Amino acid sequence: MHNDTICALSTAPGQGAIAIIRLSGKEAIAIADRLFKPRYPVHSIKEQRSHSVNFGDIYNRETGSIVDEVLVSVFREPNSYTGEDIVEISCHGSSFIEQQILHLLINHGCRMAQPGEFTQRAYLDGKMDLSQAEAVADIIASESAAAHRLAIQQLKGGFSKALNDLRNELLNFTALIELELDFSEEEVEFADREQLNLLIDHIETIIAKLIDSFKVGNAIKNGIPVAIIGETNVGKSTLLNRLLHEERALVSDIHGTTRDTIEEVLVLEGVQFRFIDTAGIRDTHDQIETLGIERTFHKISQATLLLIVLDATRSREELISFIEQIVQKTPDKKRVFILNKADKIDGAKQEKLNGLPFPSGDQSIFLSAKRGDGIAALERLIVEASQIPHIGNNDVIVTNLRHQEALQQAHTAIVRVIEGLRENRSGEFLSQDIREAIYYLGTITGGAITPDEVLGTIFSKFCIGK
Amino acid sequence: MHNDTICALSTAPGQGAIAIIRLSGKEAIAIADRLFKPRYPVHSIKEQRSHSVNFGDIYNRETGSIVDEVLVSVFREPNSYTGEDIVEISCHGSSFIEQQILHLLINHGCRMAQPGEFTQRAYLDGKMDLSQAEAVADIIASESAAAHRLAIQQLKGGFSKALNDLRNELLNFTALIELELDFSEEEVEFADREQLNLLIDHIETIIAKLIDSFKVGNAIKNGIPVAIIGETNVGKSTLLNRLLHEERALVSDIHGTTRDTIEEVLVLEGVQFRFIDTAGIRDTHDQIETLGIERTFHKISQATLLLIVLDATRSREELISFIEQIVQKTPDKKRVFILNKADKIDGAKQEKLNGLPFPSGDQSIFLSAKRGDGIAALERLIVEASQIPHIGNNDVIVTNLRHQEALQQAHTAIVRVIEGLRENRSGEFLSQDIREAIYYLGTITGGAITPDEVLGTIFSKFCIGK
Repeated sequence: MHNDTICALSTAPGQGAIAIIRLSGKEAIAIADRLFKPRYPVHSIKEQRSHSVNFGDIYNRETGSIVDEVLVSVFREPNSYTGEDIVEISCHGSSFIEQQILHLLINHGCRMAQPGEFTQRAYLDGKMDLSQAEAVADIIASESAAAHRLAIQQLKGGFSKALNDLRNELLNFTALIELELDFSEEEVEFADREQLNLLIDHIETIIAKLIDSFKVGNAIKNGIPVAIIGETNVGKSTLLNRLLHEERALVSDIHGTTRDTIEEVLVLEGVQFRFIDTAGIRDTHDQIETLGIERTFHKISQATLLLIVLDATRSREELISFIEQIVQKTPDKKRVFILNKADKIDGAKQEKLNGLPFPSGDQSIFLSAKRGDGIAALERLIVEASQIPHIGNNDVIVTNLRHQEALQQAHTAIVRVIEGLRENRSGEFLSQDIREAIYYLGTITGGAITPDEVLGTIFSKFCIGK
Repeated sequence: MHNDTICALSTAPGQGAIAIIRLSGKEAIAIADRLFKPRYPVHSIKEQRSHSVNFGDIYNRETGSIVDEVLVSVFREPNSYTGEDIVEISCHGSSFIEQQILHLLINHGCRMAQPGEFTQRAYLDGKMDLSQAEAVADIIASESAAAHRLAIQQLKGGFSKALNDLRNELLNFTALIELELDFSEEEVEFADREQLNLLIDHIETIIAKLIDSFKVGNAIKNGIPVAIIGETNVGKSTLLNRLLHEERALVSDIHGTTRDTIEEVLVLEGVQFRFIDTAGIRDTHDQIETLGIERTFHKISQATLLLIVLDATRSREELISFIEQIVQKTPDKKRVFILNKADKIDGAKQEKLNGLPFPSGDQSIFLSAKRGDGIAALERLIVEASQIPHIGNNDVIVTNLRHQEALQQAHTAIVRVIEGLRENRSGEFLSQDIREAIYYLGTITGGAITPDEVLGTIFSKFCIGK
């Protein structure tokens, strides 16, 4: 299929004990053999079986010098990642050596691989479908247990199986419709329209559920956006620092210190949250700060959860006024109200603040960001309030925008089928829409012919060497 | 020898297609087997031969979830890097997955390896001597062809062989002396003192040559320091940028912009140079800049080569005055005088500047740093002026300060032997000094017992996972 042999550094760049350079293609073993002088075992790698590791030296035959002591692993087609012959050269993790070896490989007939080209070959050679290939990139990028679990599930074909089941149901539906078509001149209605209605409703429900799962899937994959908001000088940045256990945001006693929004990532109970520190909300004549406040409201609109920080040392009246304001400005948002500076108030004041008019469904907590009191309890509240459903090992969750869009296209076609059935349209008409739904589902796994342009977009997001 | 099994991430940290986690020790295969479910071949890795690669999944048995699809390579003792059983797990290059796998390994009985601990085990198990072990770190750190060649040579045992030859000569010498001692009561002088003189002179010459090679070896390993100096606003920073082909130093038309010294590394013809941009030399009342100028003279004293930048648009008299000043202030230095801004002078002016009083042995060149004219010629001049000798594949060069110090200690002992022979001292006295020389040579390869503290220092400079 592919006539050229590709090579690339497959480990992360930078100094390390070991680096891996990977070759794939018809000439992979022959090219590596030209550079490699085996020491253990002593046979040429051309004679070695698949899945063997060989110790020896990479030679520059022109200069007669040794480039490095390496391990060379040989994988013979079809039992390899790409389905082609693969050689992995495990050398010392020095960029000088990596460059030398890549130069030699290119001089001997390899070409540098494009990002994701190994995985693209694995897909084109039928080693995995397109959604599984996309899962490879997601696995590498995943930074939380939940995102990792979804990616592994997708790699293992969980999502592909769900789509395949769906496709079978649609084919089943088409078969019934087309049977009717074959006999259309006789005006026979073989397919029980009632049965067809049930079947297509079932299909529609499944697709709608998948589409709906993207909200959760996307949040898990990219992190749940949580905005930290409140008036200036109530301790928002101190709180963020506490949550991150590090000094990242700029903290000072001057009002309006936080001029720009800062995004920080934190994993709580296996789920990733993106914390957004915002400029304090107050009237200001400072140009830069005004911009910051505009951005604050934009960020609020994107956040799934709001952490609203209040200064517990303020008067009850001031607090009530701010709470009412913020509730009015952020309808339909989950909120956690944080009464900060709890270390600076006495029991009497705290009692006075109980029963502040927080909307029902919202949470509230007293804490001291400065001293760290109540942070663990806040973390629990954040996890609870973000309402990430428990995802079982077999639940199918859509995490990929491309898949989501394809499912939406398929759904639109299915809705047309449902309308067609209601309006008693001809089988021919229905069949066309079904085919369209099948086509869109096919673009997800790559069963349908996928334009090069789409493949290009997918694999360009991969690392080099994968 | 070692009862525990160590593990570490062996590839560079950061996102990549592949990461390698390495285990070494008695339980390496058993522990990996507990986490690994093979798919191809389907046998347990416990049954696999050495140097085999196995495809399958790493499982978290407690949660029943798959951590990653991996390749597991098995190496059985003694045919491994450390001489112990080694398992290499090749997983996806995500730090989340790396952490998960390392956690599982530790839960199943591994402990995290110290920096360089794999190589330390290789040394303690007799797979390599100490100077070869040190070469491993040098290989990883090498950034130029010359430094890489020296490190590979040392890894391959070139240096060890030279030391071994030396040791044999010393043992030969001792044998002759000790023969004399055995018969000392009979007052026989078996050893021909003339022959002993010749032998010890030969040994002294070899050691002195090795000690002398450190100057070159160190320059190659750490880069040759080149200072760029000159009055303010003559284009020093522009020149450095040109040489580095990038905008790194701060360039402006304001006098005295470069306040601090900047070090940049450049490889020319396989040799690494460390370029040091310096503050301009001129009288100034600016406190910070004055500090910079003091530092300039300090840097000049450390540099092997000086690039002295002159502004060719200045008058002949001004230039002569500066040249005489700088020559006086930098005795015993190799210098390249650069007449910069050559694009701004005409032929008549250039002619006038020919025959400026450059000291013989120094080089000079007209160029335009701004336009890039003459840069290639300057690069050649830098390589020539730095006088790096050609190093043959079999030349032994000392690159390591620890080795250099041990050689100096050995040399001191040898000088005492020479004096002892001249003063006709007893064989017993001579023998003690010879033994001291042998001991110090032994510390280089580790033949002598090496204190844990020394080993600790050596291996602590390694990366984790090597």
